[in-house]
Amino acid sequence: MPQTAIMATTGEQPAADAQAGYADASIRRVTAGNGIEYAYHDLGAGEVPLVLLQHFRGNLDNWDPALIDGLAAGRRVVTFDNRGVGGTTGMTPDTFEAMAHDAIAFAEAMGLKKVDLLGFSIGSFVAQEIALIRPDLLRRVVLASSAPQGADGMHGWAPDVIGAVGQPEPNPQGYIDVFFAPTSTSREAGQQVAGRIFGKKANQDAPTTWQTRQAQYDAVCRWGIPNHSLLQRVSAIDLPVFVANGDSDSMILPRYSYLLAGLLPDARLKIYPDSAHGFLFQHHSRFAADIGDFLAAAG
Amino acid sequence: MPQTAIMATTGEQPAADAQAGYADASIRRVTAGNGIEYAYHDLGAGEVPLVLLQHFRGNLDNWDPALIDGLAAGRRVVTFDNRGVGGTTGMTPDTFEAMAHDAIAFAEAMGLKKVDLLGFSIGSFVAQEIALIRPDLLRRVVLASSAPQGADGMHGWAPDVIGAVGQPEPNPQGYIDVFFAPTSTSREAGQQVAGRIFGKKANQDAPTTWQTRQAQYDAVCRWGIPNHSLLQRVSAIDLPVFVANGDSDSMILPRYSYLLAGLLPDARLKIYPDSAHGFLFQHHSRFAADIGDFLAAAG
Repeated sequence: MPQTAIMATTGEQPAADAQAGYADASIRRVTAGNGIEYAYHDLGAGEVPLVLLQHFRGNLDNWDPALIDGLAAGRRVVTFDNRGVGGTTGMTPDTFEAMAHDAIAFAEAMGLKKVDLLGFSIGSFVAQEIALIRPDLLRRVVLASSAPQGADGMHGWAPDVIGAVGQPEPNPQGYIDVFFAPTSTSREAGQQVAGRIFGKKANQDAPTTWQTRQAQYDAVCRWGIPNHSLLQRVSAIDLPVFVANGDSDSMILPRYSYLLAGLLPDARLKIYPDSAHGFLFQHHSRFAADIGDFLAAAG
Repeated sequence: MPQTAIMATTGEQPAADAQAGYADASIRRVTAGNGIEYAYHDLGAGEVPLVLLQHFRGNLDNWDPALIDGLAAGRRVVTFDNRGVGGTTGMTPDTFEAMAHDAIAFAEAMGLKKVDLLGFSIGSFVAQEIALIRPDLLRRVVLASSAPQGADGMHGWAPDVIGAVGQPEPNPQGYIDVFFAPTSTSREAGQQVAGRIFGKKANQDAPTTWQTRQAQYDAVCRWGIPNHSLLQRVSAIDLPVFVANGDSDSMILPRYSYLLAGLLPDARLKIYPDSAHGFLFQHHSRFAADIGDFLAAAG
């Protein structure tokens, strides 16, 4: 269902800001045809922007600035809070299909005709829905820490995982326990990532609410109801896809990335060593370079 | 359907011959309860033998001696011609399920109660059938250059592939074109492998027939009829499985190994670099070591 875009950026310049780093960027706002005012960042420059879709309970500030700055060095990068998340108005919906429609409405409000998409964790589920609903919007897709709908064993996260990241008050230690592997090298990287993410003091985004947590986790559980026939859905995504995972991810096991890469008609796969759910922040330089190679292969 | 084993080895000693290398070993014969006389080799020593299942049109001599000797250095290794293949009597059946029953009959004739299984290419399809029909026979399984039944795109091999290896007279160049990657390093390895395999002069196995070629390729096409629901079959294989593939395999694409590793409940995956269908011969030292690590992890 196409929606009429209503541009209403609060900043003076709708173009991307190639000057400021991600940690220092001011939040911008745009109101879309669905009446939602979206909070977003827009960095770097390039013809086809890379639009990012965030993980469970994450807002604009939960993107590691080191990764975003690395990505924005070579292209335009757009991060945003989807409906009901952080500084964006409205209520968070409880299906990834609804979130996909909300993301498409944001892209339309921004005047984006063709984008590359990077979905991380539940953001990768939204990315799959967008690829199925509105393939013409997309050029290439990166699915980080992902899984296909219906996969056996994905009905909610393991008790220790949801226990660590599902509490009313998010805490950095629970974050590190889930996003980093139980090795000294990964934990050390985790401390640095947490310092960059949780140490932010200026231009802070609004925290995500309990409503967002509950709606997103309802969506996770619904997505994970075992249904072998639904695995076939992603065979319709004929775009080039880069599937990436940490080798020790306990939140979304690497086997689901294998499954995606086997079901998708045009996928490449990389499993990053000594890392878990936050592999893309831990290995931010390598991951940004790998994404650069993948996107540069676009015809 | 259990079958009564009728032991009738022609050699004096039923135990494995730990002395001779694979290239010099004499062919042994055993008659099973199904009335078939199987040709086989039996090398090395160890409690749980590793039984190998051969590729399209291959007989005993198509196992690279360098790989078999590497494997047999640490364990008992058994290779055999299945019904109708090479020096084994009977007609080659045209389903992998029938081939699995024939392989089980061989194991019973040999008095093997528990084995590790390594299936290569169509041998890996037979291995999956054995794991589904007779799981109690198996401890661990290696699936090399494999795919699950029903996977989209597996209905017969690409024209250049079946053109190279499907002719009435097999030829070393067609073999090298399919089994090795189009790089100088892989082709050089291919020449060495072909020299070891096709240079054998003593104790030669009988060549495989056109009946075997047609029956095996009928089985390949039947296995590859697209059927998404059949992908779920391998989720019943709860044994530890090592899935391995060459990164440039045009006969069975690496994506099918991803798919298997995603569908199997307890799989590990390795993609070998700069190699194709014959990755296990090209990287024989590395592959034998990886199999050693995998089998040593058995509880």
